[in-house]
Amino acid sequence: MLKLPRTIEWRDGVVRLINQKELPENLVYIETTDWRRLARAIKDMEIRGAPAIGVAAAFSMALFAWHFNGDSLESFLKELAYVAEEVKRTRPTAVNLFWAVERVLSRAKSTTSIEEARRIVIEEALKIQKEDEEANRRIGEIGADLIEDGDTIITVCNAGSLATSYWGTATAPMYVAKERGKNFRVIALETRPYLQGARLTAWELAQAGIDVYVATDNSIGILAMKEKINLAIVGADRITKTGWVANKLGTYLLALVSRVHNIPFYVAAPTSSFDLKSVGPNDFEIERRDPSEVLYIKGYRIAPEEVTAIYYAFDLTPPQLVTGIITEKGLIYPPFEKSIPRLLA
Amino acid sequence: MLKLPRTIEWRDGVVRLINQKELPENLVYIETTDWRRLARAIKDMEIRGAPAIGVAAAFSMALFAWHFNGDSLESFLKELAYVAEEVKRTRPTAVNLFWAVERVLSRAKSTTSIEEARRIVIEEALKIQKEDEEANRRIGEIGADLIEDGDTIITVCNAGSLATSYWGTATAPMYVAKERGKNFRVIALETRPYLQGARLTAWELAQAGIDVYVATDNSIGILAMKEKINLAIVGADRITKTGWVANKLGTYLLALVSRVHNIPFYVAAPTSSFDLKSVGPNDFEIERRDPSEVLYIKGYRIAPEEVTAIYYAFDLTPPQLVTGIITEKGLIYPPFEKSIPRLLA
Repeated sequence: MLKLPRTIEWRDGVVRLINQKELPENLVYIETTDWRRLARAIKDMEIRGAPAIGVAAAFSMALFAWHFNGDSLESFLKELAYVAEEVKRTRPTAVNLFWAVERVLSRAKSTTSIEEARRIVIEEALKIQKEDEEANRRIGEIGADLIEDGDTIITVCNAGSLATSYWGTATAPMYVAKERGKNFRVIALETRPYLQGARLTAWELAQAGIDVYVATDNSIGILAMKEKINLAIVGADRITKTGWVANKLGTYLLALVSRVHNIPFYVAAPTSSFDLKSVGPNDFEIERRDPSEVLYIKGYRIAPEEVTAIYYAFDLTPPQLVTGIITEKGLIYPPFEKSIPRLLA
Repeated sequence: MLKLPRTIEWRDGVVRLINQKELPENLVYIETTDWRRLARAIKDMEIRGAPAIGVAAAFSMALFAWHFNGDSLESFLKELAYVAEEVKRTRPTAVNLFWAVERVLSRAKSTTSIEEARRIVIEEALKIQKEDEEANRRIGEIGADLIEDGDTIITVCNAGSLATSYWGTATAPMYVAKERGKNFRVIALETRPYLQGARLTAWELAQAGIDVYVATDNSIGILAMKEKINLAIVGADRITKTGWVANKLGTYLLALVSRVHNIPFYVAAPTSSFDLKSVGPNDFEIERRDPSEVLYIKGYRIAPEEVTAIYYAFDLTPPQLVTGIITEKGLIYPPFEKSIPRLLA
C-alpha cells in the first residue's frame, strides 16, 4: 500500500495535525492538548476538508474529555455541550462537523459515570477517525475501477488524504489505481482563494508519485476542449437527500463543462457527508468568508484598497449534472432522490 | 464626460504608456523612443488587451518610422517589414495586432518617397488609435441601453479602458451608463493568473466612481445562484466569421452559466476584432504561455517545486451561448454566421 503523510493523529491526550496553511513549502505539525486551539485550527483552516474537520471536531471533544478535571458527570456533560457548541460554530457548511459532534455527544449522554463518559468520548472520536479511513479506502477500491491506463483526470480543491483521516475521497480512487499499476495524469485546479488544489492536491499526489499538473480555475473550459480529459472526480462538503452537492468553488463549473463535453463527473464522499434533512439547495447555509481572504495573497493585495470582494466559499451542483456518487457502501446513480435514501436505509 | 487615465499616447517620437503590471499599487508610465522596447511591453504584458495591443503595435512601427535614419525608401520598407514581423511575434491570439500591423504596412507600401512613407506610417498609427477610441465610445452608447438602474453586471478580465485607447469595450457601456446617471454595481472576476479583473478592472471602475466588487473566477456559478446578476458583458480577443469568441480564460464558463441562469451574455468588440478568415474554433492558435506565470504570484510559489502547470491564456465561447455582440456599427444577434458578414460587408 502507498504510504501518505498522516493528516491528524490522537496520541494520549495530544492531537498532532499537519498545518495545511504551511504546505507545500513546509511540512509543519501543530501539537496541542487544548480543545480551543484545535477548534481554532478548524476555523482558521489550518485543517480543512469535510471529513478531516469531522475528525478534528471529535478530537476537540476528546481533548476536552481527557483533560477535564471536574468531578461530576453533570458538569462534564454540561461543559461538553458547551465545547460542542463552540466547535459547531467554526465552519457552517461541512455536514461532517455537525454529524461528528452530535455522534460523540449522544454517546456521552448515555453514560452513567464520569470515567465512562470520558472513555466513551475518546473511543467514539477514535472510531470516527478509523471509520473515515476505512470508508475512504473502500471509496478508493470502488472508484479505482473507473480509472483506465492513459486517462487524464481532473479534480477541484483538495478532497485528498489531507482533507480526511487518510486516502482522501476524490483522491482515494487515484491512490488505489496507482497501487494497481495504472498510469494516468491528474489536473489539479488551483482553487482560489486558498489554492488547495495547487498547494495541497498537487503536493500529496506528487508525494505519491502520481503525474500531476496545476491549472487555473478559469481554464476548465479550454482544458475540456484541448486536453483529452476522461474523468472528473470531486469531493463533497454536503450532499442533500436529492443529490445536490455543496463543494468547493468551481465544482459546479466543472460539472457543467463535463456535461457539455461528455466527461463523466463523479462525486466521491463517505455516507457521513449526506444530509437527509436538506432536500434542495436552499435548505442549508453556504458559508460566506472574510473578503480579505480573496483580496490578499500571502500579504500581497491584489485589488485596489477602495474595493472589496464577494466571497462564498462553496458552490452548489445540481443532481442532473452528477454522473454518479462513489461512497463506501457502493457507487450510486441517478435518480438520486431514489438511490440516496436506498443507500442510507 | 468621464475622464479616465490614458492607456497609451504618441508624443512626437515618444510613446508613453501605463505599465499595467504595476497596477493597482502604482500608476507608473513607461516612456520610450525604441520600437523594440514597445514590442517587449506587448510581449511581457506591460500593455495588454486586444485593441491596446493593436495600437501599441502600430505605434511600434511609428517609432521605427520616426527614428529611421537611412536614406532609401527600399531599405525603409525592408526594415519596416522586419519590424512588422517582430511585432507580430509578440502575442499570437489577438487579431487586432495582426490587423494593425498589416494596415500600417500596406499603407506604407503605396508611398513613393521616404518622407511620405514616414508620414503615412505615423498618421496611420494615430488614425488606428483615434478610430479605436471612437469605436469604443460608440460601443458604449449602444451598450449603455442594456443597463438599467439597480443592475448587477458581471465581467471577466479587463476589457476596459486600459485594454484599449480609451473607454474600453466591455466597460464602455458602463461608463456611458454612469454618465447618464444610472446606478448599478459590477462584479469583476479576478481573472487568474494575471488578475486583470482584480487589479485593472476594479481599479479603473473605482476611479470612475462605479461600485465594483471582486470575486474569484471559480465563484461564477454560486454568484449566478445567490446574487441577482442581470447582465454579463465581456470583451473579445478574436471573433470568427461564425461567432466563436476567443477571450480571456473564464469567458466560456461565464457564458455557460449565463445561459443556464438566463443572464443575457453580451460580447463588446470593435469590428477590428473580427477575423473573417477563421470560421471555427480550430482555425487559429490559442496562446500557451509560460507555466511560471501560473505557478508564481508576486514571487511566491503556489505549487510544489516538482509540479508544473498547463496554461492556455484564452478560452473559446461557442456562438450558441452569445446573446449579442455590441460593435461600433451596431448590436448584432444570432444567427451570427449571417449577421457578422452582413455587419462587415
